[in-house]
Amino acid sequence: MKYLGHIINGDVFSESKRTLSVFNPATAQQTADVELASQVIVDEAVIAAQNAMKSWQLTPINHRAKIMFRMKVLIEQNADKICNMLTEEHGKVIDDARGELARGIENIDFACGIAQLLKGEHNSNISTNIDSWSEFKPLGVVVGITPFNFPAMVPLWMWPIAIMCGNTFVLKPSEQAPSAPFFICELAQQAGLPAGVLNLVNGDKIASELLINDPCVKAVSFVGSTPVAKSIYQQAALNNMRCQALGGAKNHAVVMPDADIDFVANSLMGAAFGSCGERCMAISVAVVIGDECADLLVQSLKQRIDGLKVGSGFDTQNEMGPLISKVHKERVEKHIESGIEQGAKLVSDGRQLFVEGFESGYFLGGTVFDHVTSDMDIYQQEIFGPVLCVMRVKNLEAALALVNKHQYGNGTCIFTQNGSAAHYFSENVAAGMVGINVPLPVPMSCHSFGGWKQSIFGDLNAYGPDAVRFYTQRKTITSRWKIPSQDHSAQFSFPS
Amino acid sequence: MKYLGHIINGDVFSESKRTLSVFNPATAQQTADVELASQVIVDEAVIAAQNAMKSWQLTPINHRAKIMFRMKVLIEQNADKICNMLTEEHGKVIDDARGELARGIENIDFACGIAQLLKGEHNSNISTNIDSWSEFKPLGVVVGITPFNFPAMVPLWMWPIAIMCGNTFVLKPSEQAPSAPFFICELAQQAGLPAGVLNLVNGDKIASELLINDPCVKAVSFVGSTPVAKSIYQQAALNNMRCQALGGAKNHAVVMPDADIDFVANSLMGAAFGSCGERCMAISVAVVIGDECADLLVQSLKQRIDGLKVGSGFDTQNEMGPLISKVHKERVEKHIESGIEQGAKLVSDGRQLFVEGFESGYFLGGTVFDHVTSDMDIYQQEIFGPVLCVMRVKNLEAALALVNKHQYGNGTCIFTQNGSAAHYFSENVAAGMVGINVPLPVPMSCHSFGGWKQSIFGDLNAYGPDAVRFYTQRKTITSRWKIPSQDHSAQFSFPS
Amino acid sequence: MKYLGHIINGDVFSESKRTLSVFNPATAQQTADVELASQVIVDEAVIAAQNAMKSWQLTPINHRAKIMFRMKVLIEQNADKICNMLTEEHGKVIDDARGELARGIENIDFACGIAQLLKGEHNSNISTNIDSWSEFKPLGVVVGITPFNFPAMVPLWMWPIAIMCGNTFVLKPSEQAPSAPFFICELAQQAGLPAGVLNLVNGDKIASELLINDPCVKAVSFVGSTPVAKSIYQQAALNNMRCQALGGAKNHAVVMPDADIDFVANSLMGAAFGSCGERCMAISVAVVIGDECADLLVQSLKQRIDGLKVGSGFDTQNEMGPLISKVHKERVEKHIESGIEQGAKLVSDGRQLFVEGFESGYFLGGTVFDHVTSDMDIYQQEIFGPVLCVMRVKNLEAALALVNKHQYGNGTCIFTQNGSAAHYFSENVAAGMVGINVPLPVPMSCHSFGGWKQSIFGDLNAYGPDAVRFYTQRKTITSRWKIPSQDHSAQFSFPS
Amino acid sequence: MKYLGHIINGDVFSESKRTLSVFNPATAQQTADVELASQVIVDEAVIAAQNAMKSWQLTPINHRAKIMFRMKVLIEQNADKICNMLTEEHGKVIDDARGELARGIENIDFACGIAQLLKGEHNSNISTNIDSWSEFKPLGVVVGITPFNFPAMVPLWMWPIAIMCGNTFVLKPSEQAPSAPFFICELAQQAGLPAGVLNLVNGDKIASELLINDPCVKAVSFVGSTPVAKSIYQQAALNNMRCQALGGAKNHAVVMPDADIDFVANSLMGAAFGSCGERCMAISVAVVIGDECADLLVQSLKQRIDGLKVGSGFDTQNEMGPLISKVHKERVEKHIESGIEQGAKLVSDGRQLFVEGFESGYFLGGTVFDHVTSDMDIYQQEIFGPVLCVMRVKNLEAALALVNKHQYGNGTCIFTQNGSAAHYFSENVAAGMVGINVPLPVPMSCHSFGGWKQSIFGDLNAYGPDAVRFYTQRKTITSRWKIPSQDHSAQFSFPS
Repeated sequence: MKYLGHIINGDVFSESKRTLSVFNPATAQQTADVELASQVIVDEAVIAAQNAMKSWQLTPINHRAKIMFRMKVLIEQNADKICNMLTEEHGKVIDDARGELARGIENIDFACGIAQLLKGEHNSNISTNIDSWSEFKPLGVVVGITPFNFPAMVPLWMWPIAIMCGNTFVLKPSEQAPSAPFFICELAQQAGLPAGVLNLVNGDKIASELLINDPCVKAVSFVGSTPVAKSIYQQAALNNMRCQALGGAKNHAVVMPDADIDFVANSLMGAAFGSCGERCMAISVAVVIGDECADLLVQSLKQRIDGLKVGSGFDTQNEMGPLISKVHKERVEKHIESGIEQGAKLVSDGRQLFVEGFESGYFLGGTVFDHVTSDMDIYQQEIFGPVLCVMRVKNLEAALALVNKHQYGNGTCIFTQNGSAAHYFSENVAAGMVGINVPLPVPMSCHSFGGWKQSIFGDLNAYGPDAVRFYTQRKTITSRWKIPSQDHSAQFSFPS
Repeated sequence: MKYLGHIINGDVFSESKRTLSVFNPATAQQTADVELASQVIVDEAVIAAQNAMKSWQLTPINHRAKIMFRMKVLIEQNADKICNMLTEEHGKVIDDARGELARGIENIDFACGIAQLLKGEHNSNISTNIDSWSEFKPLGVVVGITPFNFPAMVPLWMWPIAIMCGNTFVLKPSEQAPSAPFFICELAQQAGLPAGVLNLVNGDKIASELLINDPCVKAVSFVGSTPVAKSIYQQAALNNMRCQALGGAKNHAVVMPDADIDFVANSLMGAAFGSCGERCMAISVAVVIGDECADLLVQSLKQRIDGLKVGSGFDTQNEMGPLISKVHKERVEKHIESGIEQGAKLVSDGRQLFVEGFESGYFLGGTVFDHVTSDMDIYQQEIFGPVLCVMRVKNLEAALALVNKHQYGNGTCIFTQNGSAAHYFSENVAAGMVGINVPLPVPMSCHSFGGWKQSIFGDLNAYGPDAVRFYTQRKTITSRWKIPSQDHSAQFSFPS
Repeated sequence: MKYLGHIINGDVFSESKRTLSVFNPATAQQTADVELASQVIVDEAVIAAQNAMKSWQLTPINHRAKIMFRMKVLIEQNADKICNMLTEEHGKVIDDARGELARGIENIDFACGIAQLLKGEHNSNISTNIDSWSEFKPLGVVVGITPFNFPAMVPLWMWPIAIMCGNTFVLKPSEQAPSAPFFICELAQQAGLPAGVLNLVNGDKIASELLINDPCVKAVSFVGSTPVAKSIYQQAALNNMRCQALGGAKNHAVVMPDADIDFVANSLMGAAFGSCGERCMAISVAVVIGDECADLLVQSLKQRIDGLKVGSGFDTQNEMGPLISKVHKERVEKHIESGIEQGAKLVSDGRQLFVEGFESGYFLGGTVFDHVTSDMDIYQQEIFGPVLCVMRVKNLEAALALVNKHQYGNGTCIFTQNGSAAHYFSENVAAGMVGINVPLPVPMSCHSFGGWKQSIFGDLNAYGPDAVRFYTQRKTITSRWKIPSQDHSAQFSFPS
Repeated sequence: MKYLGHIINGDVFSESKRTLSVFNPATAQQTADVELASQVIVDEAVIAAQNAMKSWQLTPINHRAKIMFRMKVLIEQNADKICNMLTEEHGKVIDDARGELARGIENIDFACGIAQLLKGEHNSNISTNIDSWSEFKPLGVVVGITPFNFPAMVPLWMWPIAIMCGNTFVLKPSEQAPSAPFFICELAQQAGLPAGVLNLVNGDKIASELLINDPCVKAVSFVGSTPVAKSIYQQAALNNMRCQALGGAKNHAVVMPDADIDFVANSLMGAAFGSCGERCMAISVAVVIGDECADLLVQSLKQRIDGLKVGSGFDTQNEMGPLISKVHKERVEKHIESGIEQGAKLVSDGRQLFVEGFESGYFLGGTVFDHVTSDMDIYQQEIFGPVLCVMRVKNLEAALALVNKHQYGNGTCIFTQNGSAAHYFSENVAAGMVGINVPLPVPMSCHSFGGWKQSIFGDLNAYGPDAVRFYTQRKTITSRWKIPSQDHSAQFSFPS
């Protein structure tokens, strides 16, 4: 049985105290034991990171970048191995794992350009004999706490750019799918990162709390549910620790009557049911303008769901794998029951799915509710499962009002051929990531990821240009080399 | 007697409940009554700002900028009036008031360039048929809470750029020097700002607390003492409100033996005693390398202090005015006593100063301690008065260690002719604003202001480029107009 | 009679040799004499500019910017006077003159932000102990040669940003409408520009040639016809002088069948006939998809032309004034004749226009040709008059092919409601400035102006960010302050 | 015998007409035959590039970048092979070849970040209902003509970034050292570049002239001597072809009396004699302040030259290899004779060097002249050999005047410990690349390379941010999706 400890100061490390079982959600078989870090381990990791700062922050930028280029090669060479880990522990189909990893690698690509990204602004002779410029200096030890749904990608949103900025890092990945981040962290050591620059502690909530209360930690990046995100942000504020905490979502797709219904239905199938809906950018609500369009779309979705192939992620025929855990599956089923009780019309019911040969797996089929209304719990709450709510509104104004009133404002999209509708929507919608005929508008790695409202806590978004600013502090130098001649006298007034 | 109410929705407004007396610190005469806002007033102001958002955020950028250009003209036309208010209520000498206002106006100048500053980043065909770009959208109602020491400038760090970004604003200036910010806010209405875009509530701690607990407020900029900054930052975090809170400082000047002592002494006179030391960028510690250099410098400072002209700020002969209040004067005197008790050598004693004709004023002369050590309270704490501590160290390494160990990391500077020393210092010092032969390295308005360590709470600095990011939230649009042909099928994998 | 000399070294200057008469094109009355510079005058101007460089290039950026802010105020205060000059000498209606001036002033607004715009890029520790940054230094004496059609605006595209970058300037405006640029140049002296920083020589082709062959001149910005632009660019290259030369245009509007025909017709009326078509961004070709749409549009245009008010620009009822000169009027009439001869269908004929009270004016009415084909001269050549060619094509592909085949590629636009059509067009069209439902897509002042193909000669566009780069040369500093210890040895290999 | 043809459309191609012998300059043995392209070959290459544009310019940016990342891996895997080619054909010592290649690869690293680099600027609601943004589009077929002295690096300054911008490329490397660029071009095909995107034609002046007169070529980047650079720039201008042409240099090092003489002497040894002085950034003049300092330095240099190891570049003990050719060696010897004749003091004479076993090689030893004056030909002209001129001046002012008066302004440096001296020099020197205690201030790949005065023809520098702008043309889109309501009427005035 695989046993996962921690990576501290370049070495694998374990203390064999508390552990947790890791399961293959398609079979419900245990595949590994993962250790849950104690205070001792967390302290070791933070101290290792703290010590590594001394020389790492002084390492020239072009030397740092070389390691990241090597990291890219190593991770690409090991892509199959990583994707297998993702499918085994998370359950997502192998193609989806490849997609995840590809998007993760793009963050390494971006981080390779650190010399360009770290440029400060320089003014010569901005005032009499005065030059002034800014430099962006590392913060120190940075912590990343990442979720189960993208075990490879979300850590890669964080540590590559954090480290390229001159920080050292302690990653605490999800204990439900620890193998991929662990292995990638091992690759980073191979790539030539000095010991202690990137550390990984496995653990649960206890490790997270220890990390965000450690006085040596200067910043934390978190991705997870909104209640935890909020609480981590507030705790970080109490500790004067910089924090960006990304939380939950309820992403609406607005469907205009002029949209190509086949394209919309196909797009929604992938966006709602890909990775079992366990994505913070998954579309969980389709807001359709007009009953005619809605009827067509629902019919179109129903047909597709009937043919949806659910099963082991290793079977490349399959389109959807299991949910992450039994507990989570039951939670999603509860949501479905609540939808029925509160009067939504169940169009497709994923609950009675039978996957031959994988009877113990945590599978659930694609589920669609029609005639959902904004007071229902299935609308208000994030389900994080393969459940799509269809809502019907009269016009774009009403659709927009609905999106803008929701507590979350992560992603959203519109399907239309009409330029005015698309522009009106993207201009006025209260969400951080907007798709125009793009169901999952995850920003490319050279842009930044983040929602609005309860979907994010913090000023700066994940990865991309915002991350460079998040992981650095500004130093502004004002310099005068021409000393005024001897007749200078004291200037008591504010310099202008 | 002048009576200062509030400016809400374009109108002056008062409810005549709680008031506070405003004094001329040079005469101890009351000059005005300022109202202290109740919950009713705060609510009105926030609602006015909230309502004004609807159309202001949709106002084209070039229309917004036109108002800011007019604001610049109006404030320059009224400069004398504003400076008189500053000198009357704060006590600073009139030339210093002019310096303050000039630096404030530079923030308006910067804000005039909003079209350039608000540019987002655009990629066409970044992925197959995909364009992606970012827009920076306003947050909503922003609050500014500002200190007594720069009544005109610090509000101008905040609201011009916040408003140009499309936000509306509620300013709560210091109740000790309210006239200048009030008058400038009136000018802003004249400049053509729509009603409700910029509001001002006078008040004390109660108003501040109401504002940072108002659910309609989306962000707060604060400048003041570290304990208050910290507490406001934490409260804002609890309320999911964006916050930048700038706190205290203990700014060290490092003097290398190769520096021109006349230049250093003159620089320190202005930097330590200008505005009575009531500046968060004031130099309050001189760290001198070598006893020889220290002896020369102390002697040089003593001579200059003997000739320092202290008195009414309206007399243009004077170089230093009174402290802000009796209470504050007594606090500074306590610090001086503590310095003596703890063994520092008092070189110049400002306590027995007599200013003819202004016997009731809150005056204190320039005070210099030599042989200060790092365990003394006068070193550890921010005094915010005309007290300069001289410390003696063996070499640059020791000086740097001292600066880096202090709890504050706002500004610092080095005096030297040596390029290596200057570079070594600026590279390794843990402070946000570094001067090389510049005693007060306040960044120009196109850079940003902020310290490190306990001198700031928040990710992004005041004014300049950081402020544009602070006062906006990112929206990333991903757009596809070439809809794949009919043979497109659902993509369940993560898009890459 | 007004007499216009030159402005050299801050003073008005004339030598009373060659002069030219300036006419009011609405009345054919002479309004002024303008001097045509000889070599002596050109030399004086360039020497004045050269001498002014010494201190101007060392003037701190924030001091330079203050002058530009004052310039803005002065020009706004004198707007009516300037607009009257424009209408008197160019003939355009007064509202159009106001539009021109407003767009000119926006370039001053942009130039006010020079501190932000001139920022170079700074990397600390980019390589071992190495910092590196870029500064953008002025070139020296810059020349601007500007056309008659925007006597106020086009010079303001050039000298404000050139001067803010630290260059000095010699402007040679069109001799057909010299008063507005002359007066604005006088205002610039009032604004506080040091003598010699901005000079103006009036003149004709001889002055232009002297200027671009002067060895002290480092760069030239030109706007005019393509043959002259090309020849100036080549001459500048021979002289190792930086050059941007903007030439002619034939701007196509593509009209999709889904466009709102009323909106299109109104847009085309303004874009084709505003300022008598004497704009390099004027729409002179409407490419309509489908005969049905074309029939409707042509009918719609005809009706509007029947009501088009042509006359003196000072009568605010009028929508279109005279052409610039008798010669030019005759040239346009020749074009109309050629169109008829070559088989285009003349829908509206502007040639027999009678303007009561202004019988000698150079008036021509709005002229529309239908069924124009790509082999006709009226299609191939720039007419620069109130002549609109309507062409009919089957689909967007054909429209695009037409636009892309034309020798010019300045501006173009599409009218449609369809997002895909708009995106396909803007992505694939070979033109530098593209409007989507915007008939005159003149970039805002914080973007840059320039076409493709024969519409521009040079790498960098006019005004905006490109102009900052055009008017500066890059200096890259690489600095090492930590000298390697004594055991350093010679490194004969290329540093990496 | 190796035979080098051309790479066109992905295939190696030869027509066996004119050829040239390639020699090993250390042995004077022929090592290869290189074909000299005829018009047929040049046409084929340009047509291949032109055809490849169709799909390459539409290839998404992230797909393009992936190829560049692969290119980096391939070139690193083949580094030894490439460096051997460099040493064999150019003669430089193998470590120097490695340095060259490393700097070349850094340009690939930079090009990998194309998604970030190609970002345009976006403004939403810049004017009423108007959005505007810029895109940077490829130009078409770009030509690179490169010199013998950096056969690997200089082509890598050009094609990687040109191609990443969406252009296709034809490279004409130096016929004296063709193997490395040829092999790298082959690797680029392996990396996955579509056929025709990168083509290589071997050839001499005839091929260059054909290329810059080909109407399909849109831009040319050239590095070589000043007369050729100038002529190519002028020819390009006649053909309306964008051009950047980098020419010769005479780089001065200014030595202040406070500099560490050992460090200076070591730095100058490498900077003057590394690669036999055949570098456009080589230091060929040392301007020393004061005779005392000069005497010390000259003595120090003489000692080091006595120990300088000259010989085959494959012997890793050697520090300097042969010159490129017999002809060039004789040219350098002529310069040395002229120096003697014109009265310079020959301190070290490299002419009688004997390299055992390599008696036919084109070797020359390190040569130093003292007491050189500014009228001598060895000072005025670029020698491009291992000849260092020492000049003596009284003070920094005089040194600066000397540098600024020279026709070339490529690189320069100062050696000093004094911050004021360094700043004064870097601020006032008329050169594009300035080193402070850095003898060869070649900008890092994320900055740009270019001199001033006769060292460059063109607006934009080589590689780095300038290259992105050079290889693209700006397209500015102005978009309105909210069509004004039906009561809109025609607007004849200029929009503002």
